[in-house]
Amino acid sequence: MNASDAKALPIGVFDSGVGGLTVLKAVREALPHEDLIYLGDTARLPYGTKSPTSISRYAGQATAQLQRHDIKLLIVACNTASAVALDALREQMGPLPVIGVVEPGAAAAVAARPGGRHLVLATEATVRLGAYRRAILDRDPLAQVDELACELLVSLAEEGWNNGVIAEAVINRYLDQLDQSSREPDSVILGCTHFPLLRETFASVFDPAVSIVDSASTTAAAVRELLQKLRLGNEQEMTGDLKLLATDGATRFARVGGQFLGEDLATDDVTLVDL
Amino acid sequence: MNASDAKALPIGVFDSGVGGLTVLKAVREALPHEDLIYLGDTARLPYGTKSPTSISRYAGQATAQLQRHDIKLLIVACNTASAVALDALREQMGPLPVIGVVEPGAAAAVAARPGGRHLVLATEATVRLGAYRRAILDRDPLAQVDELACELLVSLAEEGWNNGVIAEAVINRYLDQLDQSSREPDSVILGCTHFPLLRETFASVFDPAVSIVDSASTTAAAVRELLQKLRLGNEQEMTGDLKLLATDGATRFARVGGQFLGEDLATDDVTLVDL
Repeated sequence: MNASDAKALPIGVFDSGVGGLTVLKAVREALPHEDLIYLGDTARLPYGTKSPTSISRYAGQATAQLQRHDIKLLIVACNTASAVALDALREQMGPLPVIGVVEPGAAAAVAARPGGRHLVLATEATVRLGAYRRAILDRDPLAQVDELACELLVSLAEEGWNNGVIAEAVINRYLDQLDQSSREPDSVILGCTHFPLLRETFASVFDPAVSIVDSASTTAAAVRELLQKLRLGNEQEMTGDLKLLATDGATRFARVGGQFLGEDLATDDVTLVDL
Repeated sequence: MNASDAKALPIGVFDSGVGGLTVLKAVREALPHEDLIYLGDTARLPYGTKSPTSISRYAGQATAQLQRHDIKLLIVACNTASAVALDALREQMGPLPVIGVVEPGAAAAVAARPGGRHLVLATEATVRLGAYRRAILDRDPLAQVDELACELLVSLAEEGWNNGVIAEAVINRYLDQLDQSSREPDSVILGCTHFPLLRETFASVFDPAVSIVDSASTTAAAVRELLQKLRLGNEQEMTGDLKLLATDGATRFARVGGQFLGEDLATDDVTLVDL
């Protein structure tokens, strides 16, 4: 295949469920001409509470499914899978590029606040794996990193309760587990793809000087940069196609996913696949 | 096998995760001499957001695993699986009895408030399947039934945030979706095994005259009655054994499950199995 053929291939985006649609949305905004194919492994979500062995196996199967659609680049739009399985997925994708959501978020936080104190809000599994801590300290050994598991925020985002007193109270209750200095970070990293939906509430809870870094927009920027570098960006003029795959529950995927993608989805927009 | 051999066999309890441990706890209290074996399909939880086809397949596999342990009775301690797969599991268990959590809860509510207005609080899937509505109206055609999906309460219970202002605010926000007459029921059925943990908060939110029916204690009572009727109750004097199986995440199972069971669990108390 020559380079101009490769440019026309779709970008694959994989997540355990609908959360990665915040990443997809950001990628569409950054790269409107790219064809995109999204796979949500809804039959087996959430990955956040599962073991590394299971997560790696599931991620490998999801990637194999996307490879059948001849993707030119894989985005692992799931923090847990990015933390656990990125190396294995890079091997599986052969020479083709793979971008997870952890590295771009960590890089953006370090760039925004060198030598700063970073607070990573994530799921239990992402915190346990310490992937953000490692990614930040690799880039900035002087950084301080606190990590806080905020499992309930996932359900809150899926319920669409992103603003208001309940969302604020839940975030504050999690933050109350921190000591005062950890509660006053230089940057807050939204280390779960669900959390960009709560962005306004996070902004209201922290001091305005705090830099809020979300994995969706930082990953989209990293993808754009990489495609430019590899000369793999699609040069067609028209808006790219979007294909949505899920392993279960198309109706719920459409309803909840529509909120994440920021546009209405119908059940028919979602194709069920077996992994 | 003769009857006295059968009496000594364990009771199998199956759930998608840790929620069914509230049922297990109630069964242990009601029947302290019985050996119990619990299987939580934590690798594939939650069932509540999955399709009926997947739920039936998972429930069948879990039941097959418990059958290998030679159980004398199966408790389907998962509202979703009870609503979707009970008939298929009865067929699979052959002549051995199967008790779900929906029927005992519905029967208890109707017995407490004949001709009354019942409010079923459950997961989205349980509500969608309408199993409580059917089970109540089968017993009492004059009853009125309202059903309300309260997905966030599952995460709240798993986080252990069962009391206090956040739990109250979340319940009230769900109840605000109802019209006034539905908000003032005669009975409230806790149609998700996670919800007994929030029982005190439910009691504080509703009028004291409202009867609060939980699937855990009503199912335990139904099991005791059935074992007596079939002369299958264990007559040994000592306290029954408890075996805990899970399909993933023994550490999390032990930590969260301990809260549900009301006693500390260690990771070693949980055996991982493949279905």
